Parts: sequence; structure tokens; C-alpha cells
Amino acid sequence: MQLLQKTIHKIEKLDEEMMAKARERMDSLIKPPKSLGKLEDIAIQLVGITRNFNPIIDQKAVIVMAADHGVYEEGISSNPQAVTLAQTLLFPKGLTGVCALSRVSGADVVAIDIGVKGEIPDDAGVIKRKIKNGTENMAKGPAMTREEAIKSIEVGIEIVNQETKKGINLLGTGEMGIGNTTASTAILSVLGNCDPLEITGRGAGVGKGGIKHKVEVIRKAIEINKPNPADGIDVLAKVGGLEIGGMAGVMLGAAANQIPVVVDGYISTVAAIIAASIEPKAKEYFIVSHASAEPGGRMASELLGIEPMLRMDMCLGEGSGAALAFPIVEGAVSVIKHMATFAEVGMKI
Amino acid sequence: MQLLQKTIHKIEKLDEEMMAKARERMDSLIKPPKSLGKLEDIAIQLVGITRNFNPIIDQKAVIVMAADHGVYEEGISSNPQAVTLAQTLLFPKGLTGVCALSRVSGADVVAIDIGVKGEIPDDAGVIKRKIKNGTENMAKGPAMTREEAIKSIEVGIEIVNQETKKGINLLGTGEMGIGNTTASTAILSVLGNCDPLEITGRGAGVGKGGIKHKVEVIRKAIEINKPNPADGIDVLAKVGGLEIGGMAGVMLGAAANQIPVVVDGYISTVAAIIAASIEPKAKEYFIVSHASAEPGGRMASELLGIEPMLRMDMCLGEGSGAALAFPIVEGAVSVIKHMATFAEVGMKI
Repeated sequence: MQLLQKTIHKIEKLDEEMMAKARERMDSLIKPPKSLGKLEDIAIQLVGITRNFNPIIDQKAVIVMAADHGVYEEGISSNPQAVTLAQTLLFPKGLTGVCALSRVSGADVVAIDIGVKGEIPDDAGVIKRKIKNGTENMAKGPAMTREEAIKSIEVGIEIVNQETKKGINLLGTGEMGIGNTTASTAILSVLGNCDPLEITGRGAGVGKGGIKHKVEVIRKAIEINKPNPADGIDVLAKVGGLEIGGMAGVMLGAAANQIPVVVDGYISTVAAIIAASIEPKAKEYFIVSHASAEPGGRMASELLGIEPMLRMDMCLGEGSGAALAFPIVEGAVSVIKHMATFAEVGMKI
Repeated sequence: MQLLQKTIHKIEKLDEEMMAKARERMDSLIKPPKSLGKLEDIAIQLVGITRNFNPIIDQKAVIVMAADHGVYEEGISSNPQAVTLAQTLLFPKGLTGVCALSRVSGADVVAIDIGVKGEIPDDAGVIKRKIKNGTENMAKGPAMTREEAIKSIEVGIEIVNQETKKGINLLGTGEMGIGNTTASTAILSVLGNCDPLEITGRGAGVGKGGIKHKVEVIRKAIEINKPNPADGIDVLAKVGGLEIGGMAGVMLGAAANQIPVVVDGYISTVAAIIAASIEPKAKEYFIVSHASAEPGGRMASELLGIEPMLRMDMCLGEGSGAALAFPIVEGAVSVIKHMATFAEVGMKI
């Protein structure tokens, strides 16, 4: 808890004064005012985050948190649970979707075992920070203890602290975990105060009982555990996941280190809502990448209060959307750095 | 007309057989089927366009067509007309919005004077293909003759033919022209069969008479010229612009050369509609980048029938949205090239 508290206390609001000056300069560039839309907003946000009028974004990483879910035994997924472990081993090999997309902007992919069921070999290139062999079955009781939930957040913070020491200056969040749309939808139902039926989708493949059964399992988990919607950590512990906590930690850690963090799709956005519920100022450090094709994606974005930039109908997870959005963030930096002002080119409008 | 006819005849449908095979491989990659959404569609489209299972996208260029508009004298813009010329000179210097964004993916920016009012110096780095010193005032008569309109399309084709000889394998379209949202909205009103009031916006800055006056000017231009909605070239000639014709030519030329072309925002999408009206098969070579913040943007996308990927509230033009989307296209290629199949990693789902 000490690390979490320390991290929360380190999170400051963005530098409003610098952002106001950046806005002035942005409006003086050779373009109609506001014509670069969200790209301008991101550029100004980056100034406010980094406290630098020429933000430097040149070392990027997607942090992929991997963990399993006890609720898997309820038959909510059509995929073998072992896929979590098998897929986790493929991130260091560069073979997955987020790896392919990270190549385009030269971003690292850092995979963390925060709760995969089974043994990850030491030489697999995966950072081993396993808290437990997957969560408990939330349909029968809490997914985690409160202590485990806090620990999962702290693992995320520790990873960010390490990465920033290496010089990483742009982060993205990603995850791998069979069953994690079930946990995310449970969290969202509690925090959004809605029936799971409204927002439950097929995820990476729904089990034999279809969406109907998945909805019933989520309803049951909420009914049994009665998570307190006013307490994000309680919700995370009772119906969440270790990788969701880990990502929330990455986001809080990024904010504490004054580094922008690009939020991926559905699961990441739910983690962002948890992070923002723990420390609302953290949200100022978030950039939301894409609108997930999962039915709950829109509600998640609305609850977080940040509109995604990309409409790609993607729902892979892994941080794939975050990696895809990195060049857009670099574009925002390039606008600040390379566009001339009207005065500089002697043009009057 | 010979070049245009020759180009149209060269345009073939995409290779459906190769695309079907690419779809099979896409579905065998280590991800839930269709979970990369539009990125998968683009990847498969690229296979069909390039006739290569491993499309190569490594030399990119945004073609920026610059021209003036006679209708400027009606007071539809708040900007001095001389901005077109002044801004055109800044593309080779790398100082504009599209230049800043093209740096991120290492794309060239190629500026063409296809109808700028005034003299572009020989050593300015702008390709000089001026057809005339801006169009005529469409509120008083046709903007161009039919011959000039065809010539503008052929200039675009010639530029593409030159660029592909240099090895360019991904194109984007852009434009610069004070008054060109007025011309684009006139075209869209005719082809979309709607009153200009429904889709007229402020563009880069509307004149003293406001949007109301701009709408009246567009109505008058349509009334006087009676463009034939069944004849894209007639519409282009009577209420269009030289840069819009030039961009339509770039798109037809890209299709004839079997090169993907990324369509920018409002003006570019209107040019794409013209290109597709001349040869519908050309559309299969288009990738639409972003949804313009201009009020007519949505109708333009709907009329073209391709949904944009990016929601950035941008309305700069210049090809800025196309440049921003280049890394997404590269991402699609990377997915084909670098993701493993389930069989390759010995995983069974």
C-alpha cells in the first residue's frame, strides 16, 4: 500500500500555464485555428504532461499484463485457458498482433506475468511478477483479496518506474487473459450501474452457453460479492483481474512519472476507469486510442470521459490499438516541432 | 482525353482470388477471427491491389494539388486569396501541417501548381503544371471548360505516373486552395442531390456574409451552370476546381498503376467521388483516412461509401489526414508480415 499511496501523492495536475502558452503558439501556426482538431489537443496535453514546450517522444513501450481468471471454470469462454500462457510466451518472440503493430513505430513490447496460471520459464523473456495462479472464481466469491488487488496495481507501478529509468517516454497499456472481458464487463456494470445484458459481448469467443450464460455469470458475481461502486479497489478485487489491476498501476505510475500513457481498447479502458477512480488527476495523462468493437466499449469510453481517436472495429486487446496510435502521438509532437508560425514565414491572415 | 481514356482502361478490379487466400491466412493468425477489424480489411485490400501476398509499402508520398478559385471574388472566404500561393511555396520547405505529419512515416510531400493565381518561381521546388490562373467565378458561369477539367485530371495522372517510376508505392492526396470548400460543397450538393444549406461549413474561414452568403453563392452557381449529376466531369468543370480534378486524377492514376491511395478529408473525398463516378473500379484502390470536421464530411463519406478510420476533428486539408493514416496502412502490412499463424506456433484453438 505504501508504494500506491506514494505514487498517488506524486501525481500532479498538468502544467496549465505551459499549456496556455502552447495553445497560443498552436493558434499562431500556419493553419486555420483548431483545424488539426484532437491532434492539437494532444500536442498541448503533451506539453502539460512533460513540462516541456518541445516534448520528446522517442522511446516507446507497450506494457502487456498477462493473467488468468478463475471465472473461466464457469464456461464463459470458448478458448482453452492455456491460451493465456501460450500467448504470453509469444510476446517476447515478436509474433503477436501488438508486436507486429509496435514495429511500425519502433516500440518495445514488455510482457509481464502478473497472474498467469502455470509456469513461465525463466528464459522466456517475460517479466515474472506473478501474484497468484489466476484469480479465484468470482461467481463463487471475491476474485482477489483487497491486498492482492493493491499488489497488482503496485506491480504495474514498479514496472513503469523501471521502464522510465531506461528512458521510456511514451507508454501504452495492453493485456492478455482468457476470460478478461467477463471481468471487465462485471467492473463496468458495477461502475456504470447497468445490467450486464446491456454491455456483454462475445469477447475472444464466448462459451457454449452463449452471451446469455456469460451475462448470468456476471450478474451472479456481482450479486454474491456486492462490490462497492464508490471504491475502485473493492470493485477490482471482487470482480476484476490481476492484469486489470496491473494496467491501472501502469497508468497511475505513468502519471506519477509525468509520462503520457496511451490506453488501448475495452479492458484497458476499464482499467483506466479504475485508475481514475483511485486518483482522478491521473486521467490528465491518458490518451485513448481506439473505440473497441466490444458492445461495452462505448460505455467504457463515456464513463472514462475521453473519446477515442481510431474507429477500426478492433477487439484484439494486447495493447494493439495503443501501438497503432503511437504514430498519431508522434504526429502531434511533430506539429509542435516542425510547423512554422505565420510570423516566421511573414504571412498575415 | 487520350491519357484519361487510356488510364481508365488500365484500371482492373482487385485480384479476388489472392484476396480470398489472404483472408484465409488472416483468419489463421494467432488472434480471434476479425479481431483486427478494418486493419485486416486493409491488409487484404493491399494484397488485392498490389497482387503480392507480402505487399511492400516503403516509399510514400502525399501529392498536394494547389489552385485558386474564381468564386473567391464573391466574398466566400475570410482569407486573402494570396494565401494559396504563399502556402504552396511552404510545402517544399517542409513547414506546413502535412509536412510535419509526413515526417513521422518518412513520406515525401510533392506540391503541384495546377492553377495557382500568380507566378511560382522556378526554383521553389513546386512542380509547375498550371492550367490557368485559378478557375472562373462559378457564380457567373462555368468554373472551367470541359477540356480544362479533363486536363486537370490528366495532370494528376501524369504526376502519379512519374512518382511510380521513382518507386513510390503508397500515395496520399492533398490540396491547397482558398475557396475550395465552396467548390467541394457545390459538387457534393449536386451529386448528393441536397440543398447546400445542409452541408455548408466555415471552411478555413468564411467571409463577412457568413455561411448564409456562402450557401447563396453555391446555390447560384448550381442554378446558373446546371451541372449534370450523371456526368462527373461536367460537375467538376462547372462548379469544381483544378486541384479537385488533379486529385481525382491522382486517384485514377493510382488505381491504373495498382497502387493504394489514401484519401484525405472533405475536399479529397469529394475528388474521390468524382474519380469513382468516372471509373467505379478505381474505388477499390482507395483507403479513406479521417472524418472531416466540415459539416459535409459525413455526407461525402457516405456518398463515397467508405467509412473513415480516424476521428480527429481535423479540417486542415493539405493531405494532413492522409499522412496521419500512412502508419496505419504500414501496420496492416506488418500484421501480414510479422504475425504467426496458430499452426506455426503449434497452438490449437
